[in-house]
Amino acid sequence: MSENFIFEGHDTVELARRFGTPLYVISENRIERAIKKIKSAFNNAGLNYSINYAGKAFICKAMCKILQKLDVCLDVVSGGELFTALSAGFDPACITLHGSNKSEIEIREAIDAGIKTITIDSISEIDIVNKIASELHKTANVHLRLSPGVEAHTHEYIQTGRIDSKFGIPINMGIRAAAKVESSSNLRLTGLHCHIGSQIYSSKPFQIAATSMLEMIYNIKEMGVEITELNLGGGFGINYLQDDPVFDIDEYAVILSKTFEKQSKELGIKIPKLIVEPGRYIIGPAGITLYSVGTVKEIPFLRKYLSVDGGMADNPRPALYKAVHHAIIANKVNKEANDLVTVSGKCCETDTLIKDILLPKAQSGDILCVFNTGAYNYSMASNYNRLTRPAVVLLKDDKAEIMVKRETYENITINDTYPSWL
Amino acid sequence: MSENFIFEGHDTVELARRFGTPLYVISENRIERAIKKIKSAFNNAGLNYSINYAGKAFICKAMCKILQKLDVCLDVVSGGELFTALSAGFDPACITLHGSNKSEIEIREAIDAGIKTITIDSISEIDIVNKIASELHKTANVHLRLSPGVEAHTHEYIQTGRIDSKFGIPINMGIRAAAKVESSSNLRLTGLHCHIGSQIYSSKPFQIAATSMLEMIYNIKEMGVEITELNLGGGFGINYLQDDPVFDIDEYAVILSKTFEKQSKELGIKIPKLIVEPGRYIIGPAGITLYSVGTVKEIPFLRKYLSVDGGMADNPRPALYKAVHHAIIANKVNKEANDLVTVSGKCCETDTLIKDILLPKAQSGDILCVFNTGAYNYSMASNYNRLTRPAVVLLKDDKAEIMVKRETYENITINDTYPSWL
Repeated sequence: MSENFIFEGHDTVELARRFGTPLYVISENRIERAIKKIKSAFNNAGLNYSINYAGKAFICKAMCKILQKLDVCLDVVSGGELFTALSAGFDPACITLHGSNKSEIEIREAIDAGIKTITIDSISEIDIVNKIASELHKTANVHLRLSPGVEAHTHEYIQTGRIDSKFGIPINMGIRAAAKVESSSNLRLTGLHCHIGSQIYSSKPFQIAATSMLEMIYNIKEMGVEITELNLGGGFGINYLQDDPVFDIDEYAVILSKTFEKQSKELGIKIPKLIVEPGRYIIGPAGITLYSVGTVKEIPFLRKYLSVDGGMADNPRPALYKAVHHAIIANKVNKEANDLVTVSGKCCETDTLIKDILLPKAQSGDILCVFNTGAYNYSMASNYNRLTRPAVVLLKDDKAEIMVKRETYENITINDTYPSWL
Repeated sequence: MSENFIFEGHDTVELARRFGTPLYVISENRIERAIKKIKSAFNNAGLNYSINYAGKAFICKAMCKILQKLDVCLDVVSGGELFTALSAGFDPACITLHGSNKSEIEIREAIDAGIKTITIDSISEIDIVNKIASELHKTANVHLRLSPGVEAHTHEYIQTGRIDSKFGIPINMGIRAAAKVESSSNLRLTGLHCHIGSQIYSSKPFQIAATSMLEMIYNIKEMGVEITELNLGGGFGINYLQDDPVFDIDEYAVILSKTFEKQSKELGIKIPKLIVEPGRYIIGPAGITLYSVGTVKEIPFLRKYLSVDGGMADNPRPALYKAVHHAIIANKVNKEANDLVTVSGKCCETDTLIKDILLPKAQSGDILCVFNTGAYNYSMASNYNRLTRPAVVLLKDDKAEIMVKRETYENITINDTYPSWL
């Protein structure tokens, strides 16, 4: 029996040998299964819905192709993400643009491309979007992002639905914002949006937010404007560790469906289309990172440090959020994990990747596999220490090919230039 | 009188207009003054020394040219930094290589280029460096990085001199390491190294570390090996806020000089050459970042959010280390700073840049100037949200020219590729 960890039918040690390390590995089959799971839950619950994948979790041209193939829409948060999607031939009619501080250039690029919706994040942005739309002789469909005051209990950095937030319009200003959109010559208000946080494991806060937002749809209908879409954002939690709670997408779908139906009936409004924006939920568990073990350093009676050839440059989550990832030694899956180590990166900084984890006794040349790195790893990677960013390999059935090439030294110095006096 | 903030003779609002925002601005005159200050302190104290600038703080080809011009050496921590320096024509005989987990490729590139010293970070690395040096038929000068067990009181992430660290060889294994280097065919032990942390404001911990290291030089001399260089690393604190303590470089020089002299005499060893590795101290205060203010959002009775067109992608220090930077509105320097705001970035995440700062009442289009961003800003920047990294402008006397070009959408998608089935 092989000692090597098999990920979606692929020998990870073989992948590391073939493509080099550090290496991000993404499974297209896992992406498909995650999307199928959401669709199946939503279909079973009788929801009218759209899935808008949150590009910020992980985006590249090939990812856009996969999404389009799976009939999933895309939410972008910058001109760079929009450019990526359009370059990949992604249908603009299936793209939405988000952001608490979009530049006028980004708004112009989005309207010009004919994207589906722009989510307006502040009252002052209404005039800006309207001005640009009218300059382009277009009508822009907009959603209003409201902060419903729901605070899901996650890490502070990713609480975004509360009132004290840079995001969204406080819900008590929602009517004023809707009236302003309606009086704008080149805007059409098609929906409301809220996002209450990340890594949420219960459906309850979503239900509370939905209730609040449905009331707002009623209020706006009283003004004579019918809202047809309600975007409840993302935030579906994934299991970074085995003991993490499980987010139940079926329960979410049933609860939301019932809430939409019951409350819409009570309020006399049409049941809006539910839009969700999962990012991590789709791509997080689809990705692993393979590292080569380098220096193994034992500080007697204190700690054993296992250094790998990546670190905070390719996965800043532990340093940023004290995030915890599970890992194994990919070439020793049948060995007992009885050696307590701390996994460090190669940055010139105390870039602990995993503090205190039990692994089989490891040595230089072993392959470390870190799980759930599909989201917010490649997308947040830097060139700190002028490290080149790893390649991303895509797996599909028995095939494995590059979707993002490994950076070269030339890539990272391409913009270096000399002032005339040097 | 101009309302605009003048930085080293340059109108920052004009710089923002000319080069766009966000914009990193680096003053060559400030770099020169910082280096002159160190040299003058060290010369006055009668030290025999070398300044090795820590490239990880900020490196690009033009920076290497500046250092060479100022007769300052360079410490690199990766193949990417080495490549940058060599591409800029930097003299390899003035380059040292550091790192707790160097790859064999990086070690080979360094020895092949003929760099001055490789700082060995673990006992297991001795054999690796020796093997590569002998394959290349060269003799490599090496330093041994020891952890002297000195813990300077700074943020946990940047405590690196303590025994429980991924860095260095515990000092009690120093003799064993030195003996191993001496018995290696292609290595020459020329120095010892330690680095006790970052943002240190007192000379005391450096003195304690120096004392410890001088004892080790004596011990190694007893083995018949004369060490000629002692590298005490960097860590000289800078003032991010006006109330921060001041690191006294003159005091440092005097204390180190006296310690070196007195103890060397006592121990009967030759006074070693002092090597220091300042990074932040040289480049931190030489840099500012200019942002354009976008959305201004007031949450009644709670908080006012001022959003700028950059954020954690170009300055991850606040998110990573809870670092605090001072800032002003560059076009309103004569206005009273009486408006309490929180400065947010444009990332799709709660990327607070500065929490609760008093600024003059600001509006969209104003230019925010953030201070002390020369170090660990550009070097740690990411493309999170596929934001393009800002340009870096270099100021010298009355001249201002680009030293790193602004990234383009094409730059950030250059490595995107399609597996054959997509």
